[in-house]
Amino acid sequence: MNIADDVRSKVLIDALPYIQKYNNKIVVIKYGGNAMTNEELKDAVMSDIVLLNLVGIKTVLVHGGGPEINDMLRRVGIESKFINGLRYTDEATVDIVKMVLAGKVNKELVAHLAQHKGKALGMCGIDGSMIRCHKLEAEHDLGFVGEIDEVDTKPITDALNNGYIPVIATVATDSNGQTYNINADTAAARIAAELSAENLVLMTDIRGLLRDKDDESTLIAKVQVSEVPFLKRQGIISGGMIPKIDCCVEAVRRGVNKAVIIDGRIPHSILIELLSNEGIGTQFA
Amino acid sequence: MNIADDVRSKVLIDALPYIQKYNNKIVVIKYGGNAMTNEELKDAVMSDIVLLNLVGIKTVLVHGGGPEINDMLRRVGIESKFINGLRYTDEATVDIVKMVLAGKVNKELVAHLAQHKGKALGMCGIDGSMIRCHKLEAEHDLGFVGEIDEVDTKPITDALNNGYIPVIATVATDSNGQTYNINADTAAARIAAELSAENLVLMTDIRGLLRDKDDESTLIAKVQVSEVPFLKRQGIISGGMIPKIDCCVEAVRRGVNKAVIIDGRIPHSILIELLSNEGIGTQFA
Amino acid sequence: MNIADDVRSKVLIDALPYIQKYNNKIVVIKYGGNAMTNEELKDAVMSDIVLLNLVGIKTVLVHGGGPEINDMLRRVGIESKFINGLRYTDEATVDIVKMVLAGKVNKELVAHLAQHKGKALGMCGIDGSMIRCHKLEAEHDLGFVGEIDEVDTKPITDALNNGYIPVIATVATDSNGQTYNINADTAAARIAAELSAENLVLMTDIRGLLRDKDDESTLIAKVQVSEVPFLKRQGIISGGMIPKIDCCVEAVRRGVNKAVIIDGRIPHSILIELLSNEGIGTQFA
Amino acid sequence: MNIADDVRSKVLIDALPYIQKYNNKIVVIKYGGNAMTNEELKDAVMSDIVLLNLVGIKTVLVHGGGPEINDMLRRVGIESKFINGLRYTDEATVDIVKMVLAGKVNKELVAHLAQHKGKALGMCGIDGSMIRCHKLEAEHDLGFVGEIDEVDTKPITDALNNGYIPVIATVATDSNGQTYNINADTAAARIAAELSAENLVLMTDIRGLLRDKDDESTLIAKVQVSEVPFLKRQGIISGGMIPKIDCCVEAVRRGVNKAVIIDGRIPHSILIELLSNEGIGTQFA
Amino acid sequence: MNIADDVRSKVLIDALPYIQKYNNKIVVIKYGGNAMTNEELKDAVMSDIVLLNLVGIKTVLVHGGGPEINDMLRRVGIESKFINGLRYTDEATVDIVKMVLAGKVNKELVAHLAQHKGKALGMCGIDGSMIRCHKLEAEHDLGFVGEIDEVDTKPITDALNNGYIPVIATVATDSNGQTYNINADTAAARIAAELSAENLVLMTDIRGLLRDKDDESTLIAKVQVSEVPFLKRQGIISGGMIPKIDCCVEAVRRGVNKAVIIDGRIPHSILIELLSNEGIGTQFA
Amino acid sequence: MNIADDVRSKVLIDALPYIQKYNNKIVVIKYGGNAMTNEELKDAVMSDIVLLNLVGIKTVLVHGGGPEINDMLRRVGIESKFINGLRYTDEATVDIVKMVLAGKVNKELVAHLAQHKGKALGMCGIDGSMIRCHKLEAEHDLGFVGEIDEVDTKPITDALNNGYIPVIATVATDSNGQTYNINADTAAARIAAELSAENLVLMTDIRGLLRDKDDESTLIAKVQVSEVPFLKRQGIISGGMIPKIDCCVEAVRRGVNKAVIIDGRIPHSILIELLSNEGIGTQFA
Repeated sequence: MNIADDVRSKVLIDALPYIQKYNNKIVVIKYGGNAMTNEELKDAVMSDIVLLNLVGIKTVLVHGGGPEINDMLRRVGIESKFINGLRYTDEATVDIVKMVLAGKVNKELVAHLAQHKGKALGMCGIDGSMIRCHKLEAEHDLGFVGEIDEVDTKPITDALNNGYIPVIATVATDSNGQTYNINADTAAARIAAELSAENLVLMTDIRGLLRDKDDESTLIAKVQVSEVPFLKRQGIISGGMIPKIDCCVEAVRRGVNKAVIIDGRIPHSILIELLSNEGIGTQFA
Repeated sequence: MNIADDVRSKVLIDALPYIQKYNNKIVVIKYGGNAMTNEELKDAVMSDIVLLNLVGIKTVLVHGGGPEINDMLRRVGIESKFINGLRYTDEATVDIVKMVLAGKVNKELVAHLAQHKGKALGMCGIDGSMIRCHKLEAEHDLGFVGEIDEVDTKPITDALNNGYIPVIATVATDSNGQTYNINADTAAARIAAELSAENLVLMTDIRGLLRDKDDESTLIAKVQVSEVPFLKRQGIISGGMIPKIDCCVEAVRRGVNKAVIIDGRIPHSILIELLSNEGIGTQFA
Repeated sequence: MNIADDVRSKVLIDALPYIQKYNNKIVVIKYGGNAMTNEELKDAVMSDIVLLNLVGIKTVLVHGGGPEINDMLRRVGIESKFINGLRYTDEATVDIVKMVLAGKVNKELVAHLAQHKGKALGMCGIDGSMIRCHKLEAEHDLGFVGEIDEVDTKPITDALNNGYIPVIATVATDSNGQTYNINADTAAARIAAELSAENLVLMTDIRGLLRDKDDESTLIAKVQVSEVPFLKRQGIISGGMIPKIDCCVEAVRRGVNKAVIIDGRIPHSILIELLSNEGIGTQFA
Repeated sequence: MNIADDVRSKVLIDALPYIQKYNNKIVVIKYGGNAMTNEELKDAVMSDIVLLNLVGIKTVLVHGGGPEINDMLRRVGIESKFINGLRYTDEATVDIVKMVLAGKVNKELVAHLAQHKGKALGMCGIDGSMIRCHKLEAEHDLGFVGEIDEVDTKPITDALNNGYIPVIATVATDSNGQTYNINADTAAARIAAELSAENLVLMTDIRGLLRDKDDESTLIAKVQVSEVPFLKRQGIISGGMIPKIDCCVEAVRRGVNKAVIIDGRIPHSILIELLSNEGIGTQFA
Repeated sequence: MNIADDVRSKVLIDALPYIQKYNNKIVVIKYGGNAMTNEELKDAVMSDIVLLNLVGIKTVLVHGGGPEINDMLRRVGIESKFINGLRYTDEATVDIVKMVLAGKVNKELVAHLAQHKGKALGMCGIDGSMIRCHKLEAEHDLGFVGEIDEVDTKPITDALNNGYIPVIATVATDSNGQTYNINADTAAARIAAELSAENLVLMTDIRGLLRDKDDESTLIAKVQVSEVPFLKRQGIISGGMIPKIDCCVEAVRRGVNKAVIIDGRIPHSILIELLSNEGIGTQFA
Repeated sequence: MNIADDVRSKVLIDALPYIQKYNNKIVVIKYGGNAMTNEELKDAVMSDIVLLNLVGIKTVLVHGGGPEINDMLRRVGIESKFINGLRYTDEATVDIVKMVLAGKVNKELVAHLAQHKGKALGMCGIDGSMIRCHKLEAEHDLGFVGEIDEVDTKPITDALNNGYIPVIATVATDSNGQTYNINADTAAARIAAELSAENLVLMTDIRGLLRDKDDESTLIAKVQVSEVPFLKRQGIISGGMIPKIDCCVEAVRRGVNKAVIIDGRIPHSILIELLSNEGIGTQFA
């Protein structure tokens, strides 16, 4: 793409008020979905994060790792057991989850950021006892799935203050040292809250919240958290959107300034969301 | 101008390596010429500087103020006296120069940066005894025109460390407290050297150094300072270019990484020079 | 003057408790009147300030510049227009005011302090957006005369912490960047309040508040701010004293420990006021 | 074990000069062998490290993870290929190595230290680009086995300064982001050198260097690095001892004060080595 | 005493939770009685303090000096005058007390700690105006015996922050500069309270609080301060124990976490009390 | 003494350049002789030191205590034994010396400074192992008289940095913990050297170095250290002056900017020396 100098300068100057707005503020990005499996999208996310960090936005990356976990479970011959559509995590499974998330996905993200000259530190909820959890009580026992008790943000803020981008895998331990897997959206929301982040960005594989789920032109750009129950009753928030939007609501209720659901399938959706006028997804505030 | 999101994100990502390169480095910009009199260009310069500062480039603005000085001299009825084309600066004149540069132009730049949400501190060579000078010895007496003895960069680095953009008017005093006017290009070069700046940018009203002065397509993009004497002998460097290029050479010799002459008539020439691939003017290194 | 060693040592030791009292405290001095036009008095003020600063009193100098403004207005042929005795400040006038105050008087004070080895930084309300104002609403429109909205003391405390004497010219901008002239007494009082200064010293051309305005022996040394309305009703506070004393009252009400009106016609009146037993003028507390 | 108070106090006081000696110094411990597989020994090592850290010795833990790697390779059906007794590490293998070391062993050590109230941060050579490596050139190609180019100790010293015990898995990347496995002894020696550690402790499964390898009573307590070539020629240093002792020699040559080989099969061998009179293994200095 | 390695390591590991508990906390030790006159006990106390300090417990030593004072009074021929069993302290006596406590005992303790490689700073209540007192009002005039008005802990915390063990002699001055002797137990309790110490340890020449004063097996290990009046009424707290226990109660009431009376006749009683399971004396909380 | 305001202000302004000269510099004052025994002189010295400290001169007070030592030796019946005019210091004597210097004189000076609102910390060479010495080897054994090995200035600079005036008694220990008395002039010179002091001031009971010892009008105001041997040969430097002047020479040789001998019998001689034009004694540089 050949871009004229005047376009270049206009884009940069257009970004100025947004850079000013987020300057020295914390933005927590939950990274997942297509943006994590498609190499081109992945590369775009990595360069976006390095850029945001460089222009003075304190960026924290929280990630899941579904496909790679499934792949490894398959390789070691662990059969996935589902209860009401939710995976049952037995001890052998949580062991694989920990390895894949904290040892493979996490380190590959750090290495990828380094390829863009970004200095990152990989960590998980176990490091510095960052996340303390207990067994999630659900209708049906889900095994070693954890619910967060408390977050000690010191390892994260230490990393930020020392000039690093923290990259966080969401496994954690309970008080006996037992490992649990924690839902990455939930963890990102809670981390954002404990950091008093300016913004929580959840990357998804949908366009945002649509008034008509089959028509992308009906995107709802802004939602007050107080409207969410009504939107649920209307069926506009439904299915897989519910837990993600609940995370947004929870984050905003605990003090995050705004939470947005963006479409990770669009290259550089993070940059467009944060550094341009209209934003790109659905914002909760 | 309506710019698509993909262009926006490409421009921002393209800027990444340049922001990384200048991150936490000092860039001294000598502001003058058309870019200072044309309101639209002026506004572009101000927003460029605020942006550079925001993305972590420590920007120092050094300015002259020719037209406003002439205007005020005329208003108070001081007749300009020229010797071999150089203005003779008598005591009444230097008084007006000081007022206009340090009291009008300087403060208006600070106020203009504030309109773009840039926090700036105006200062001149007298503040904190930043610049110490003596009477310039020239073939013909030029009156109160000063030559720099030493620069105490503390007021500048204090301002940078405290989060401000330093804006500097180039009047100074000798050891007896007598005020002198100092050539702004020279002062910018010396300040850049004392700050060990990464880059000195001189804004001019020409395209750069041209091999054929009537053909802008013959722009010389890069010059080694060792080539300058040869280019002078060839007549390629001649006339009004000589003192400007001598400033560039002096800055590089004293440790500035590179010095560039850019065309201030092009909007956002500073951004284009610093944050894009090719640069825009003639660079001395 | 030949002074014996025992007198010297006694004077220094006598100053000890006063130096202790003001040690590390902020004193704001409004400089104006005769002390600013008479060269000998001026020199005494400058050395006083350098001494105070050196013995650990954080000294802030706020200045006006009446005569020099009048002189320059006259030179550029702007006729002064008065409404009920107050000058109407049109756009051309405020331009001159800014130049003279921030570019001439301010820098000459900085240079003068430097002659006494005092390190000072000149600044005005525009620098670092220190003073934000709006148009003063008065019975008759006075043009570009400003009323302070807020004071950001950071540029002042930065200067103090970095070891400089801040010298402040009282011009400022509104939110649109328009320049206004601000009464220096009022600005000094407000700055003192925002800095939680120990003392505000207003230099005037009278002996202080006199019970009988024609008899200097009737000087009132101390006034409680609660007595001021009564003294006004009695006519003891009257005429040009009213705005000055209102500034003192305002400063004390906003938390300044005490405010004093001293006679700037007496050489070293600042030193005598601050470092000797009786003080020299009228103190409001 | 019932221990009398006078014995307790004597032991503590006996430890005093050793605690003084190592106070505020860095000790790098290479953890491996039996001490890593036997649960009781493991628990002893964890409590030793927490204690050392608590009494002011800056402890850095570097670990391998042989058995767990083999176990996982077996589970995913990767057959181990050996060349002259050295494992060939193909891409699939290095992937497993990274996961097991950085995601399983590393995090379990951090969790185990937390059970003893030790605050630790797990990291690997990829984090913060701590270890940069290239492909090890050996007689026969060993695949993705790396040789260290440089160590950036900042992530380690940041962790120490922030009050954490750094726990380091020795995988790293080359300049293209390719992952390599690095021998943990070698990495520990190099890290100790770059940190100017006081002591490098290599935990092994032998008693130390024996003059007669079948008689533990012939333990050599101290060796000068200059004697090593002679001991090799004599056959006293031979077989699997050679690379370990070469690491010790290398560490001492690069500035580590001393390097010791201790018997990890003895519970609390680290404490005995560091905090008692005789030491327990073979020391190189 | 020949102690096996496994005993050594067990003792050290057993101390771990206690070192963790007191880590970075302040412990004030009142040193006196037999532990101060018996050379062997003295040496044990000094090494205990150096060890505690080294393992991160901020140790403050407060001392009396009875026997040495008596000895010097005798040497200069001052006859001791007693009123109801309490010494009357005339001006000549307080002069000797000051000299002996602050000049002899204090400095010898500092020198003794230095022999164990402990860095200590000797000071008394006069230094930095640490302790301000007035004449103690008692039924019968006791002369220059002081009662504490206030404690400025800055000299103590400065010493701790600069890495020294503060050693404090309890003489102080009133507002006129007159010296007074202050009871060391009382001063230690007050200093502990002002420092928000974790623990106040009073060394005595008895086993602790005994239910039957003739049977050491009836030692009461823990007392709630609320039980003290009852224990006094029962006669279990009586005689010389009363003032010491009142100090403990006072310290706990003013915020010290716990206060203990230990038997200074047992070697290393401080270490046993602080770093072992059961403690050794009577604890008030 | 009734002093007019103009005299007061002149004296203060006259002191300005001297305060500037010594600002933030260290001045070591050796206090002794009449200035220590005469109450009025003593009071003057104390107020001088508080004033110097307050105006930003880092003042260190080193003291002897001859008469008080003699008095106490007499009281305890220790007979003074002299060898060639020098006192033989046996063990009993050094014990008294330590008590009197570090426990009486030192603390009384601290208390006296506090009466003038000066915050001081008393210390001796034993504190923080500040002065390490060994037995002075002299022609005839002088007992426990020490010669300085090394000075650790940390306790002194800590005190200065924490805002205290250090007051130092010159007793110290050797590596075995044995106490020695150290000549206070010698110690002051060495301390000044180790602190890179600007000035060493030795207070004596003579006018200074006189060309004719019976004529005070022949005072030599300045001496180059290189002239000293010549002045000794001439007999101008003789008798009791020799060791004092040797201290001055030694201090200057080791880097102190200048050393002066002043007449402590003149009230406020320190102020006059440091803060007035001519100085008052004999200066060595």
